[in-house]
Amino acid sequence: MKFILACVGCSREYDVETPLWRCRVCDSPISLKIEDYPELNRFQDIVEDDLTLWRYGKLIPFSDFRVSIGEGLTPVHIHSFRGMEITFKFEYFSPTGSFKDRGASAGVTRANALQASTIVEDSSGNAGLAYSAYAAAGGLRARIYVPEDAPPAKLRLVSAFNAELVKCRSREEASERAVSELKQGEMYVGHLWDPFFIEGIKTEVFELYEFSNIDFDAVVVPTASGSHLLGIYRGFIDLLEMGFIDELPAFIAVQSAGCSPVYEEFYGEKFEGDGSLADGLRIKNPPRMREILKVLRANGDVVVVNNDEIREAIKYLLKLGILVEPTSATSWAGMMKLESEYRKILMPLTGTGIKTAEKLQNL
Amino acid sequence: MKFILACVGCSREYDVETPLWRCRVCDSPISLKIEDYPELNRFQDIVEDDLTLWRYGKLIPFSDFRVSIGEGLTPVHIHSFRGMEITFKFEYFSPTGSFKDRGASAGVTRANALQASTIVEDSSGNAGLAYSAYAAAGGLRARIYVPEDAPPAKLRLVSAFNAELVKCRSREEASERAVSELKQGEMYVGHLWDPFFIEGIKTEVFELYEFSNIDFDAVVVPTASGSHLLGIYRGFIDLLEMGFIDELPAFIAVQSAGCSPVYEEFYGEKFEGDGSLADGLRIKNPPRMREILKVLRANGDVVVVNNDEIREAIKYLLKLGILVEPTSATSWAGMMKLESEYRKILMPLTGTGIKTAEKLQNL
Repeated sequence: MKFILACVGCSREYDVETPLWRCRVCDSPISLKIEDYPELNRFQDIVEDDLTLWRYGKLIPFSDFRVSIGEGLTPVHIHSFRGMEITFKFEYFSPTGSFKDRGASAGVTRANALQASTIVEDSSGNAGLAYSAYAAAGGLRARIYVPEDAPPAKLRLVSAFNAELVKCRSREEASERAVSELKQGEMYVGHLWDPFFIEGIKTEVFELYEFSNIDFDAVVVPTASGSHLLGIYRGFIDLLEMGFIDELPAFIAVQSAGCSPVYEEFYGEKFEGDGSLADGLRIKNPPRMREILKVLRANGDVVVVNNDEIREAIKYLLKLGILVEPTSATSWAGMMKLESEYRKILMPLTGTGIKTAEKLQNL
Repeated sequence: MKFILACVGCSREYDVETPLWRCRVCDSPISLKIEDYPELNRFQDIVEDDLTLWRYGKLIPFSDFRVSIGEGLTPVHIHSFRGMEITFKFEYFSPTGSFKDRGASAGVTRANALQASTIVEDSSGNAGLAYSAYAAAGGLRARIYVPEDAPPAKLRLVSAFNAELVKCRSREEASERAVSELKQGEMYVGHLWDPFFIEGIKTEVFELYEFSNIDFDAVVVPTASGSHLLGIYRGFIDLLEMGFIDELPAFIAVQSAGCSPVYEEFYGEKFEGDGSLADGLRIKNPPRMREILKVLRANGDVVVVNNDEIREAIKYLLKLGILVEPTSATSWAGMMKLESEYRKILMPLTGTGIKTAEKLQNL
């Protein structure tokens, strides 16, 4: 088995150890290619005796350099609703309370392997916190660019990890400055671009396959940069390539009204409204748009939700005893709008509601 | 195998379905007795195919009525420090971000089985939140008595779960009013008293035995009501009774300066200082004092830590990428003060630092 970095635009290939964050020729995002998947009788033959996502380290680059603090192996909970079987996967049962911990673990592992001094990330909050924690765990410095209106609790925690916090006027400015201010020896690990982030996320799917169930009609995922959706897609692709599954589920991206570029590309029309409660979904120009559209067009859809629908979703989940942030609740809100025949649905719950306590009252 | 409720004071026994929270004769706390442990060749023979703590449901009463939302099966992380091997167990990777979720799951399960309409709990924050979530999950109402200076984020989240929040002038008033205002059909599940809470906690130990390692010289646990320490003790006792281990580790209780009743009973002297950062450790009269002392006197100790020591502990853990609340960091602070030969230490990390973000800055 061999890992290769490949440009998603011009297909140019790079050695996996090349320190880049986008194609040097065409500026497109990079994805990770696996050549010569292991031939296995059973998936368990590559599973290591490690109770984190690194039990699947053989399918993740640089696993000998892993920076790991308990991420992965999240529980599932099955909920029946109107004839559907919803599998919640609790991705916020994790070091910093969001699914970003998986990606940060894989991303910082690569920075550690390539001996970067500092990792640089742009984030609306959760990713910044995750990368700050993993930088600390790996003994690297971290500089995090955030929009100034990111949730205060998230920013406080980034500072607590001793990361350098750079407040920007907007999410876009954060993305721009994170790369334009990059210095020698530093590594940009922005999860909008970093292919290793996606390799961390894919382990969600391996866990479902190993421990519970992989038979889903559809996966519903809040979508901003698309790195969560693409990570889950990647997990299914790996299982398919190794011969453990025969088909892929449909992929449903959920976006928030007011920032729904994937919807606009998919349907060719604007979507008006206010979905600002989902502060984690504010990416106006996802670098991986082409990849997202390819997945959705093969078998999927995109729905857009507004604040009223998000509030109803939060309330419904709270009644089940489930405490998620508004961004995460969009997946329930989105599922409620789907007109479909899907019966078995995977719904990763992406971020704890603890960080956004003030938004969960008086709904 | 049979479950029996037994008074820890006068030894009077009650049927496990008796709805009481303390002995009707002598007012002492109740503990759960297991008679006729199963005779097993291997522990796995009682393990169910359930990826929550309820995989050990055969050793927990009322498991057919379980109220479960993904609690348990928390990861461990081993950290080497000055010749010691510290096993962190991340108890805040859980529905509401603290170890209380385990106890609340078992406690609300019993309330569900006995068809209570409402559960009533007193708490400094975390337990109130955990019980609110599990009440919602079980379709029960919840009324939570808290001191008015409990961390605001925790109180907001209790309200988000639609629990009735009763603010009291002190932690003591919260305990008193929770029971004095109890009405017909309601069940007091206060974790200072409830033996079922302890039965939920004990599963931490079963997980260590099943998945990683059970060979520890000592267990270090922040101690207020003692229900965490007694829960872990109970887990070891169950393993001992079933013949899977031969001896118990030492138990080290950690208390905070300014509220250290266990230290005072154990050593017969006052401990001055300010440990108020650990807002979860403010129990002046733990009902289970006698049981705690019995465990510590058999093989153990109690140490008291102050705010400076807690701050140093938080900072040290943050450098490892670990984000805990001050109350949880007391266990690291306490371990640093131990003069001992312990080499293999179990340290459950009890609560996420996300809820107390404002306390983690500028340390």
